[in-house]
Amino acid sequence: VIFDDRQPGTRSSASRPHSQGEQTRQTILARALKIGSREGLAALTIGRLAKELKMSKSGLFAHFHSKETLELATVEKAKNGFQNAVLLPAQASGRGIERLWNLCELWLVHVERHIFSRAYFFTGALFVYADRPGPVAKAIKSSSQEWFDALRKAVEDAQARRELDRSASVGRIASELNGILVGAHYAYLLENGTSLREARPALLARLRELAANTIPTSAFQSPRSWIKYLEKMH
Amino acid sequence: VIFDDRQPGTRSSASRPHSQGEQTRQTILARALKIGSREGLAALTIGRLAKELKMSKSGLFAHFHSKETLELATVEKAKNGFQNAVLLPAQASGRGIERLWNLCELWLVHVERHIFSRAYFFTGALFVYADRPGPVAKAIKSSSQEWFDALRKAVEDAQARRELDRSASVGRIASELNGILVGAHYAYLLENGTSLREARPALLARLRELAANTIPTSAFQSPRSWIKYLEKMH
Repeated sequence: VIFDDRQPGTRSSASRPHSQGEQTRQTILARALKIGSREGLAALTIGRLAKELKMSKSGLFAHFHSKETLELATVEKAKNGFQNAVLLPAQASGRGIERLWNLCELWLVHVERHIFSRAYFFTGALFVYADRPGPVAKAIKSSSQEWFDALRKAVEDAQARRELDRSASVGRIASELNGILVGAHYAYLLENGTSLREARPALLARLRELAANTIPTSAFQSPRSWIKYLEKMH
Repeated sequence: VIFDDRQPGTRSSASRPHSQGEQTRQTILARALKIGSREGLAALTIGRLAKELKMSKSGLFAHFHSKETLELATVEKAKNGFQNAVLLPAQASGRGIERLWNLCELWLVHVERHIFSRAYFFTGALFVYADRPGPVAKAIKSSSQEWFDALRKAVEDAQARRELDRSASVGRIASELNGILVGAHYAYLLENGTSLREARPALLARLRELAANTIPTSAFQSPRSWIKYLEKMH
């Protein structure tokens, strides 16, 4: 499986609800994630949720005993969404540089799909929560870390497979590729233009410079030539 | 003036307080910015400020008539801090590629100085507020836009001065350089290692690829060789 922007690389995360209680819980969490994605977790209160969902506060408390439990479950839901849309399909597809590409491509598609908001939940959350104590901050950092580790591992694997030059630092490559994504997202939030689309040739230009000579440089010329190259490799 | 990481490129923004009222206002805003930087603007309430500063709520209301006025003044203070630490010194120094470098260098120093928090206020705020209506979101976006426009303008100027290749898109270059900074910051928040320092050679590698042949490639070899090159140009 090779991902490009013609295929939304998503898997449904919906396990069929086992009970009405579970169904209510999922409805609450969906709304909580919507608020958290649009306005940040701090905007999430049990009172507001109760009002928006036309539920009683005590009904909500039956599911989430505190604001912290609610925040944690919301972060968990966002994390699962990201795993299902990006990490799992990338891990199920290809290896080395192909997986590295798929991770970045699926990240872009995930942002482009605008679930609830143009801003991707975890980028803002990482910057706001990085220096805070407590389990919510920890859960947010662990999701960003999971993404960053997946990038690092794919870079390492691509080096081991002699697709990428082995002399460059794994952490630095991961940070630069992630920077192309986050930087394109930043520009997109400001200018709402073609920045996310432009991230793809920028990624390929960077990969071309990092590539070992086992891959023809012509493969990196455009997203189209790159997809063709990957297809031929199968 | 060439900025490198040996010189904190800051200018004091402290105009001498004209009155005790103004002094109190600045004390309140300093604390507000501390809270906003560490925990996000949403954590900022008049009640909390009153408690932390041992002031009466009514005393605070005399300075800030609403949470929104307080948030706006806090964003304004953060914006002034960024202007004084990054934008103004860069604009007062060099032109073209030198100013482009100084903007990036001063941005890194500003983050490295850890004012209140490892996270730089506006990056998190942009991601959290990008899709929200209202004057606070507008003020946050305008500060990020001011930074991004300064980058774009320096890129344009460097192209006009034939320091950078004129065929590349200004917006894409600005987005990529900003991405190197934000990506390094992201990695730094997760790993607390050398990511911010590594942004400098990464920036130079990118500038080398974008440079016109008016600059010897050896200049881009390391931050040290780059500073020497800029010094020689004066």
